[in-house]
Amino acid sequence: MRAAVIEATNQLLQDQGLTGLTVSEVARRAQVNETSIYRRWGTRENLIIDALLADAAEQLPVPDSGTLRGDLIAYSTALARYLTSPAGNALDRALASAGDDPATQRLRDQYWDARYAQSGQIATRAIERGELPDTTDPRFVLEMLVAPLHFRIVLTREPLEPDMPARIVDALLHGLVTAVDPRNRDG
Amino acid sequence: MRAAVIEATNQLLQDQGLTGLTVSEVARRAQVNETSIYRRWGTRENLIIDALLADAAEQLPVPDSGTLRGDLIAYSTALARYLTSPAGNALDRALASAGDDPATQRLRDQYWDARYAQSGQIATRAIERGELPDTTDPRFVLEMLVAPLHFRIVLTREPLEPDMPARIVDALLHGLVTAVDPRNRDG
Repeated sequence: MRAAVIEATNQLLQDQGLTGLTVSEVARRAQVNETSIYRRWGTRENLIIDALLADAAEQLPVPDSGTLRGDLIAYSTALARYLTSPAGNALDRALASAGDDPATQRLRDQYWDARYAQSGQIATRAIERGELPDTTDPRFVLEMLVAPLHFRIVLTREPLEPDMPARIVDALLHGLVTAVDPRNRDG
Repeated sequence: MRAAVIEATNQLLQDQGLTGLTVSEVARRAQVNETSIYRRWGTRENLIIDALLADAAEQLPVPDSGTLRGDLIAYSTALARYLTSPAGNALDRALASAGDDPATQRLRDQYWDARYAQSGQIATRAIERGELPDTTDPRFVLEMLVAPLHFRIVLTREPLEPDMPARIVDALLHGLVTAVDPRNRDG
């Protein structure tokens, strides 16, 4: 039952956005009883969070390549692919268009907290390996990584070039002032 | 006449969003003839771009403090203030919610091109002063700077902390791997 309900929910989120989705319509599409959904998930909000996270977890596994740079590039490349797919694109726009009422904001907070908890492991492992200072805030690292991709998808709607993940990662890791090969700096 | 029309347009953009705005409603609010607006601006799109840019130029003057770090912090601090004001917040959400039809996308492209042309001067001057490698893409620098602010405003809706501009700028300039004071690194 869970898989069918989650799939129906993600389908409806893409079609109708965050605020338009109703549990009765999910029940109809998944061919289950509405009361069964409430029994399992409790609230509409819990169902939506579970569906959004299931989709993100499937599309965005947390890489573990052994290096920070490798993990950041793998993660942002997968994110770029997800955000340019119809499903990922629709979910991002649904989150951007939804209102500020307390229930929606609680859902939004829970969604991003869970996403950062997953993806933040990339930074946490890098700190443990000594690749990042132990004062680093994992959430900030991931925020700086993903923000330019979401910014293009939602606001400027510019295409995400294939080299964009690597450009972002190299700027973030080593800084813009050292972006050039040191051997060429005085050349 | 221009000031009244621009003000009415920005007011309507905040109230009704990008797609809801009509020239006849602008004319009514500004108490001018609809034909006068078309004579001056040609199209609805040109009027909207002019209004959005007038607002951004007023709220977001390009700083010239003499250092790249000073300029980036001044600009992102002003942007954070603008995006958390009712006007800036509404404009960002209107841009995020508007569709992908060719006319809207042309408007969006022109708006961001003009914004980057203005703010990109910060990076261009830094290249001239030798603070950035001459291979630096000014638009990329500004995109990395502003994306985390817009990302919070439109997607996560997290508050922008007062120290967020400086955190972003220092990470961007020197990189996350050197974010800690070198004297403490082996301590």
